Amino acid sequence: MAEVIVPAREARTMEVRKGQTLEIVDLEGQQVGDFTAWLASDPNEYLSPGHTVSSLAKLVPEVGDSILSNHRRPLFRIVRDDVGRHDLVVPCCDPERYAIDYDAPDHGSCLLSLETAIAGLELPLRGEMCWNVFMNNQIEDGRIATYEPPHPAGSTIAMEVLEDVTVALSACPQDISAVNAFNPTPMALRTSD
Amino acid sequence: MAEVIVPAREARTMEVRKGQTLEIVDLEGQQVGDFTAWLASDPNEYLSPGHTVSSLAKLVPEVGDSILSNHRRPLFRIVRDDVGRHDLVVPCCDPERYAIDYDAPDHGSCLLSLETAIAGLELPLRGEMCWNVFMNNQIEDGRIATYEPPHPAGSTIAMEVLEDVTVALSACPQDISAVNAFNPTPMALRTSD
Repeated sequence: MAEVIVPAREARTMEVRKGQTLEIVDLEGQQVGDFTAWLASDPNEYLSPGHTVSSLAKLVPEVGDSILSNHRRPLFRIVRDDVGRHDLVVPCCDPERYAIDYDAPDHGSCLLSLETAIAGLELPLRGEMCWNVFMNNQIEDGRIATYEPPHPAGSTIAMEVLEDVTVALSACPQDISAVNAFNPTPMALRTSD
Repeated sequence: MAEVIVPAREARTMEVRKGQTLEIVDLEGQQVGDFTAWLASDPNEYLSPGHTVSSLAKLVPEVGDSILSNHRRPLFRIVRDDVGRHDLVVPCCDPERYAIDYDAPDHGSCLLSLETAIAGLELPLRGEMCWNVFMNNQIEDGRIATYEPPHPAGSTIAMEVLEDVTVALSACPQDISAVNAFNPTPMALRTSD
């Protein structure tokens, strides 16, 4: 087993191979991770929450569902999900989100954390590529309401890896809204053969 | 007034200026348009349905709402909407959508139509940049259901243009599902000062 710890408010990458099992683990609970992936053979093919939602015709993937690339290629298949709450609709948080919507222009963001994590890797990155793992957004009469995630320490989503990919995970630094229950904490990426 | 006709199953572009009013018109009714835009001064800043949904905290923008770029800059403000149904969650249709989900690998798609329309303009294009104007997708218990759009000929959405942009509109060629009531037809882009 290999493990990469993602410190609170930071992001890390990991190389994973087809056939492995990849786990995203919330070490302390109530934390959201922003996750994306790039095909090892062509980083212009990447995890796309939009294409996943489109082809699944549902907003939240479940055990048995595949997570697709922008070319609708299955990259992962969910085999276990302790939480079952995710957001694949909104992009990751970014400097403009904090500046405009929270009057906090110098706040850290998943986009900046991910940019730091992939520096030098020549991977394209845009907020639309991020799956907000464990995010407790609910659609209520067409409105998006964000609630504190209730899941406990150790909560895990496990996925069969279907292609060789580079993955990146940001432990979301949002501490102004309920996203991480106002207390950003670390997460982990784990692989097993 | 300037007008660009978008033939059925094709796409067209138009240059629009800050202060103008831009109309997207369904000429024959029950048609969906896939619409995006690029900032004239920097085409890497583009219309982002995801960022729009995120900052509005609602799935469908309404009269008075702004449509945002990937840097959360307001590009348009809706001033009239005869239809009030839109999809900002799923990317535009693409060759893989038809090949994998409809067994129709040679079918036309909004992505291919838009690529043809912007050829030579050096504009980035990805399915995640497309707002599905007038698309009658409904969220039902977390599932995305697609219904025939009931709106009649002449239905229009009008927007105040807030930045100089290049816009592109695809008259969606989907004739296998209910998206365009199984009968793709033309649309129009109109500007007035």
